[in-house]
Amino acid sequence: MRLRNKPWATEYIEAHPDVIIPNPEDYKGKWHEVFGNPNPVHIEVGTGKGQFVLGMAKQNPDINYIGIELFDSVIVSALERVVEAEKPANLRLLKVNGAKLQEYFTKNDVSRVYLNFSDPWPKKRHAKRRLTHEGFLKLYESILIDKGEIHFKTDNRGLFEYSLVSMNHYGMRLNYVSLDLHAEMPEDNIMTEYEEKFSAKGQPIYRLECQFTAK
Amino acid sequence: MRLRNKPWATEYIEAHPDVIIPNPEDYKGKWHEVFGNPNPVHIEVGTGKGQFVLGMAKQNPDINYIGIELFDSVIVSALERVVEAEKPANLRLLKVNGAKLQEYFTKNDVSRVYLNFSDPWPKKRHAKRRLTHEGFLKLYESILIDKGEIHFKTDNRGLFEYSLVSMNHYGMRLNYVSLDLHAEMPEDNIMTEYEEKFSAKGQPIYRLECQFTAK
Repeated sequence: MRLRNKPWATEYIEAHPDVIIPNPEDYKGKWHEVFGNPNPVHIEVGTGKGQFVLGMAKQNPDINYIGIELFDSVIVSALERVVEAEKPANLRLLKVNGAKLQEYFTKNDVSRVYLNFSDPWPKKRHAKRRLTHEGFLKLYESILIDKGEIHFKTDNRGLFEYSLVSMNHYGMRLNYVSLDLHAEMPEDNIMTEYEEKFSAKGQPIYRLECQFTAK
Repeated sequence: MRLRNKPWATEYIEAHPDVIIPNPEDYKGKWHEVFGNPNPVHIEVGTGKGQFVLGMAKQNPDINYIGIELFDSVIVSALERVVEAEKPANLRLLKVNGAKLQEYFTKNDVSRVYLNFSDPWPKKRHAKRRLTHEGFLKLYESILIDKGEIHFKTDNRGLFEYSLVSMNHYGMRLNYVSLDLHAEMPEDNIMTEYEEKFSAKGQPIYRLECQFTAK
């Protein structure tokens, strides 16, 4: 994600506390209070400009969505989109670090984690930063319900290969794999911005669904 | 594999019992007698015209290889190749049905199973015939050493997707995945006939290595 300096971003973010929750640590263990209902919560780690999470929120009104993105200059684009879509009641954004999810969520807070076109961190010495590294899987497991799911898509072959192995070694159950999502193009697929760009170039999009199992 | 009628095949096969073992059931539990050494045995199920298994035998003299192929008209091409290569001492062929491996092998007889460009059996009702179906995995496990390995490659996306899920559900450990083998092209990769043809067309070749785990 290319980061542009947007001096107005901070102000715009602070003006919409009903979308980008300013005090997420206060809702740890009680996200139903934010949404005013007991529906399952799905989070997207690295939500970027928000096209995916907004599309999902509109498609599935009975699921609560939380898009997580660290950078002001990126999340502000997601915020603009959400404001333009008249702030769906089942969608929030968090401007926090995905590596610190435990500060905002506790066991059973989340039913599903989406990872879309995450940074591949191709160098071996950066493997720990990949969002499908064992350390992150442990983190997701600690905030998910039992048998909670991860849905992951990417155009990056190396990251997908790595993730298949990493999830398998963690003992996760693989429920679905597509090595060319757009050859099948499920009707309910919501594309991310990256996905539109890369699939237009004819590159395959890889996708998997997996879940944690009882230990 | 397109089957041509080759009336001379049976005679040619019978003339080379030192390559295509005519009585493999006699060696169940004692394949070291065939090879005259205690080296590990690797088998290829569906060996086709034999290019892969012959290449492997030449590359790795300290491994014993057995290529398994059901059809006379196909295995005879492998036989011709093996005769032409002066019958490497560490290579045999079996003209038997891969679904009946237990008639010829018992637990610990085999260290590794190769599956290359197996028939994809794309129809759901034929899933049981896929060589990576649970039933076949069970079969391989019953003749392999503990932690025995399967090395699998194919150009067929659907079969590879299916196999990743099937092996994961079986509890196998995934050690390696490539979603474009020829982009990496490991130096020791021995190509099959199919692989040469399909990769020349620019189609990705998928490959994995996995192993059985203690239950």
